[in-house]
Amino acid sequence: MPDKVRIALDAMGGDHGAAITLPGADIALTRHPEIEYLLIGDGALLEPVLAGLPRLKARSKVVHTDVAIRMDDKPSQALRYGRWKSSMWLAIDAVKNGEADVVVSAGNTGALMAMARFNLRMIEGIERPAIAALWPTLKGESVVLDVGATIGGDEAHLMNLAAMGGAMARVLFDIERPTVGLLNIGVEEVKGLEQVREAGRMLREGNFPHFDYYGFVEGDDIGKGVVDVVVTEGFAGNIALKTAEGTAQQLAQYLRAAMNRTWASRLGYLLARQAFRTLRDKMDPRKSNGGVFLGLNGIVIKSHGGADAEGTASAIDMGYDMVRYELLAKIGQSLAGDLKAGATMAARLAGGAAS
Amino acid sequence: MPDKVRIALDAMGGDHGAAITLPGADIALTRHPEIEYLLIGDGALLEPVLAGLPRLKARSKVVHTDVAIRMDDKPSQALRYGRWKSSMWLAIDAVKNGEADVVVSAGNTGALMAMARFNLRMIEGIERPAIAALWPTLKGESVVLDVGATIGGDEAHLMNLAAMGGAMARVLFDIERPTVGLLNIGVEEVKGLEQVREAGRMLREGNFPHFDYYGFVEGDDIGKGVVDVVVTEGFAGNIALKTAEGTAQQLAQYLRAAMNRTWASRLGYLLARQAFRTLRDKMDPRKSNGGVFLGLNGIVIKSHGGADAEGTASAIDMGYDMVRYELLAKIGQSLAGDLKAGATMAARLAGGAAS
Repeated sequence: MPDKVRIALDAMGGDHGAAITLPGADIALTRHPEIEYLLIGDGALLEPVLAGLPRLKARSKVVHTDVAIRMDDKPSQALRYGRWKSSMWLAIDAVKNGEADVVVSAGNTGALMAMARFNLRMIEGIERPAIAALWPTLKGESVVLDVGATIGGDEAHLMNLAAMGGAMARVLFDIERPTVGLLNIGVEEVKGLEQVREAGRMLREGNFPHFDYYGFVEGDDIGKGVVDVVVTEGFAGNIALKTAEGTAQQLAQYLRAAMNRTWASRLGYLLARQAFRTLRDKMDPRKSNGGVFLGLNGIVIKSHGGADAEGTASAIDMGYDMVRYELLAKIGQSLAGDLKAGATMAARLAGGAAS
Repeated sequence: MPDKVRIALDAMGGDHGAAITLPGADIALTRHPEIEYLLIGDGALLEPVLAGLPRLKARSKVVHTDVAIRMDDKPSQALRYGRWKSSMWLAIDAVKNGEADVVVSAGNTGALMAMARFNLRMIEGIERPAIAALWPTLKGESVVLDVGATIGGDEAHLMNLAAMGGAMARVLFDIERPTVGLLNIGVEEVKGLEQVREAGRMLREGNFPHFDYYGFVEGDDIGKGVVDVVVTEGFAGNIALKTAEGTAQQLAQYLRAAMNRTWASRLGYLLARQAFRTLRDKMDPRKSNGGVFLGLNGIVIKSHGGADAEGTASAIDMGYDMVRYELLAKIGQSLAGDLKAGATMAARLAGGAAS
């Protein structure tokens, strides 16, 4: 276990830049005093905020650059003007050069992914990246991937997602063999997208050392926590994630309106306010802020662009955990085993089809 | 406006058959006494249930068949043994022959769709069917389609969905020009699936007489009620719908647990129980039970296989409304206008690309 965790923070990322990222970094520091920060961004903007956060200042080194990636740029534009010199690039580069253990950025997702791929490169055997999210469930949490990095993908891609997600759950949840389900629109083998059915066949017949294949799961199984890992390509995964967020907001608003309707309900609310606080904590989207980019030779955490300081701190916490428990190395080990099993399986199935 | 509404009910459909479908039909009758039923199924099973429901018995004619489609058959199997003679087929056939105005079935979705296509045929100009759901939102309700009839689909298919969904919203919500959004994983024009971007371009540049194109919407915009109609292909649409259902169940369970935790919260719950009842009503999935098959020459309502009597009654209510307000004819008229605008648009764009 490393005795300190070095975090490269893209201080300019997100909708509000340093005014949010630095207070967030400070909050994470109260929980993990062994963090050391590289704060990357425009010194003229960072220093005044930092002056008001002496604890953070003492554990940070500022790396100045006046180039910042805009939230609405296309990845290609961002690469053109931001490569070698933007705060986002330099944060990734710090991990590449071994000066930091993890990157945290609330910047433009497409640009962050493009720069991370370009600079860190993909793990051997993985062709396309994924973003994994931690999804709160009735049983605890599940890993859901991909929530938006790669649109579409064949059965080989889905197999890779299963192996990477399984490895992440294994180390995050401390389970020997997590269960993995494929997101589909029915649980019968005959339903759904061709590539999902094919991946299901390979996963069912394969023998994977580090996870158990459960079968197909549907949208409503995610929140039930039916499996530890839910695998899907990034279009459906992103829509599922955002639909769940939207539904939670919608119900919270219904609840507020209902509790405000009569004097009796308002009094009831007062009596039960501790219960409502617990509920609000459980539903707080800031607590599960932070997507992990998987498939890269380095740990990159994407914080939500609109995250506040508490949300930023959650994303930093996630990066901290990933380093502290050496997740990347363990994911690599698991991946090697599961990808080998997958490749053997694929070869055998291909051989079977040919004979 | 027709003076009676004739409903062909597949009495054998769903997980519980006549024990649920007939009491459901009876509930709908209390709200709409002008309904007349054709109850199609095994007379030996139907008659004993009907004997206990004199009001329903007085407004029904039983059509006997001892063939019923099983919930887990593939559509091809169901067609093989169930065509011409199953309760599902005969219910559809009653609409085809003009003996009923609408089919309601809680049976196997794939089989129902296959039989409906085979018997009723698609509307001219529409190649692939869709299932539209009514989605409760913060502003009221939206039409979301397709929630699982057709997986994938090109920009022409998405345009058809926009026209059909727009027409349905126009008549259901009584809005002159409903707003239509395309479900995507970002609101920028450069993001998402190729065919979604292309459909967005055609909708933006087209001039549709019966709806206004809003742009891309994301998963969390559905529950906000940002648009009246959300258009997506059936895989992502089904996952969005089920994920929202799962999230609602999950939060309801959190709420129950929170309100049970201390004596104060339990007392608060008692005081606010009317508010909780309102909330439960708002979240009751039975109230929005019933998917409408769109694109067919006839009205087919799919009730949830696990629906109880109240849920069945909601699906029948939806069928009733569709007939009562002559939705099919109006959808046909709207479609003709919007599809023409779409075709003109497509031809112009194709011409522009070729020149």
